[in-house]
Amino acid sequence: MTDPAASPAGPISPGATVGILGGGQLGRMIAMAAASLGLKAHVFAPDADSPAFAVAGAHTVADYRDEAALERFARTVAVVTYEFENVPAETAAVLARHATVRPNGNALETAQDRLREKRFLRGLGLDTAPYAAVDDPGALARAVAQLGRPSILKTRRFGYDGRGQALVREGSDLAVVFRSLGQKSILEGLVPFTREVSIIVARGVDGECRAYELCENRHANGILSTTTLPAAVRPETESLAADMARRIADALDYVGVLTVEMFVVPHESGPGERLVVNEIAPRVHNSGHWTLGGAATSQFEQHVRAICGWPLGSTQRWGAVAMRNLIGEDANAWRTILAEPGASLHLYGKGAPRPGRKMGHVTRVTPEPRRGG
Amino acid sequence: MTDPAASPAGPISPGATVGILGGGQLGRMIAMAAASLGLKAHVFAPDADSPAFAVAGAHTVADYRDEAALERFARTVAVVTYEFENVPAETAAVLARHATVRPNGNALETAQDRLREKRFLRGLGLDTAPYAAVDDPGALARAVAQLGRPSILKTRRFGYDGRGQALVREGSDLAVVFRSLGQKSILEGLVPFTREVSIIVARGVDGECRAYELCENRHANGILSTTTLPAAVRPETESLAADMARRIADALDYVGVLTVEMFVVPHESGPGERLVVNEIAPRVHNSGHWTLGGAATSQFEQHVRAICGWPLGSTQRWGAVAMRNLIGEDANAWRTILAEPGASLHLYGKGAPRPGRKMGHVTRVTPEPRRGG
Repeated sequence: MTDPAASPAGPISPGATVGILGGGQLGRMIAMAAASLGLKAHVFAPDADSPAFAVAGAHTVADYRDEAALERFARTVAVVTYEFENVPAETAAVLARHATVRPNGNALETAQDRLREKRFLRGLGLDTAPYAAVDDPGALARAVAQLGRPSILKTRRFGYDGRGQALVREGSDLAVVFRSLGQKSILEGLVPFTREVSIIVARGVDGECRAYELCENRHANGILSTTTLPAAVRPETESLAADMARRIADALDYVGVLTVEMFVVPHESGPGERLVVNEIAPRVHNSGHWTLGGAATSQFEQHVRAICGWPLGSTQRWGAVAMRNLIGEDANAWRTILAEPGASLHLYGKGAPRPGRKMGHVTRVTPEPRRGG
Repeated sequence: MTDPAASPAGPISPGATVGILGGGQLGRMIAMAAASLGLKAHVFAPDADSPAFAVAGAHTVADYRDEAALERFARTVAVVTYEFENVPAETAAVLARHATVRPNGNALETAQDRLREKRFLRGLGLDTAPYAAVDDPGALARAVAQLGRPSILKTRRFGYDGRGQALVREGSDLAVVFRSLGQKSILEGLVPFTREVSIIVARGVDGECRAYELCENRHANGILSTTTLPAAVRPETESLAADMARRIADALDYVGVLTVEMFVVPHESGPGERLVVNEIAPRVHNSGHWTLGGAATSQFEQHVRAICGWPLGSTQRWGAVAMRNLIGEDANAWRTILAEPGASLHLYGKGAPRPGRKMGHVTRVTPEPRRGG
């Protein structure tokens, strides 16, 4: 089959192979979306038990720093993408020498480092939590003096699902708090938010952006617990979020699906709301799982379309949606969930349901009257 | 994870392996549905290029009559199913000695043989086309005298997509027509239908049945071209179809997804319609592809739920649906289809777009006001 459109990587057609770095549930769902579009998938991951391997035509088990394995992998694929942002810079550099990597390295590096990310967002004129760089215990003392207590110390790199964070309370011993992370960090002041939301946006090779509707998220123990739509925000907040996501994607010259987590903060006077960016994830995201069955195009298919240089799909939502993560033993309720009318179960093919392990999710879609209809 | 429900095969839980006989697009979509539910898939097919292999964790390339390979396959899986009804009887028998096979052998044998199928349907009091068994040229002459011209001679076994059929016209040389099929056949009288429809029904291990809404089908060159819903039939015809499908599934003690193709025939007097059964397919079916994205549960997931002894899913439809097959070079329009708002593209990962080859399908879903709302 022929592809009439040119892209920097050359045209990618059905039958081509998409390379996916990372073999967890996100890689697995990207691989399945690729298969639905007639593409092959090659998954690269260090763990021989990676859930994504079972749905991909090819896989490589190797360390992310194994240059020879990375080069062999890159040479078999039309485009490389990843399921996580903590791809080592050297890994991305090796891959980029032999293949087109989407999203690009700049997006990765920006999202990998909380300090760089905050500066980037402020540079776009977007709100973030107040913050200060903390490279040593002395800097932490100065930052706490500036931002107050409580505040949160976060590692600049490699934090996820609430890991790499420590709360600075009244009476906290700052030396102990600093040692608990033990690396370059940033202190963030608390944001007086009423809701946590996120927006999933895709940007194509041609610069077209399509955002899904705003998602409302709840966390438990630092891990996403539920996502619901529509979010209980004002219509202008919904538009503002899409506009912010688009500006971020444009500024990064982004290709693929990008997630922006935000806080909804009431205006100090008046009825309005403002949005404070919490963080960017340069990838498909747990808060976008509702799109699988809840929207015309899943975030996984949308990502594949974007990285292949293909037209983006419809982000139409099928109804009111509630997505709940199945963490650890939550997944033991699989049979009860299957029996529930309107519940759609997704399990990731992982082995033992360890505490904190994301085993699957369940999506409930309730058709609602069309707006304005 | 534990499964509280008993089934003849013993409980099947996520993590278990589903065995799939046949590696085409139907097996591929069954394997993907199994993966979404946390199951593994093992695909058995004779062709090393089978599209289903790329989305299954395990595959066996062997002939359907290779008993040793069948036994090894059966021993690795919790349940065996198939994507096509022309499974040789010996194959089914070998598998049944080592594994639970769903649907059962009786359903297979009934659907494999047009004569046995017609007798089974008539035995249930259901309408079929008028027919006569044709074992030799003399029987063909007698059958044509009885059923008239035009009529259709069909092989008793191994027909699909219009193959294994010959039209008996005015002036046809019956000896030539008989030789063109060259095997035991049946002659079918023409049915004066106004529409071709089909219904996809699932029956669980516990006997629960759930039918999707009636699909309206159009064929071109003997191959399904489009499926649309809702079907333009009277409400009582819709109910009648579901009732007929349920009676067929019950009578076969069926487990899995079953498809019943029917003709809509206007009553000779009065405004009503009757339904004449054309044929049964003991499997997921091309006319059910719309459920993938067009309904809360796809026919593939429904089939997996049923054969695993799990609760059946919701058959709710998301809107008005049109499914179109991409046959041969139709698939070259993939990029145009991707760019069309509301079109959902599915490609099967096949190589060259040969004439008549099913390369993929496209589903268009248009949300419609809720009935009664």
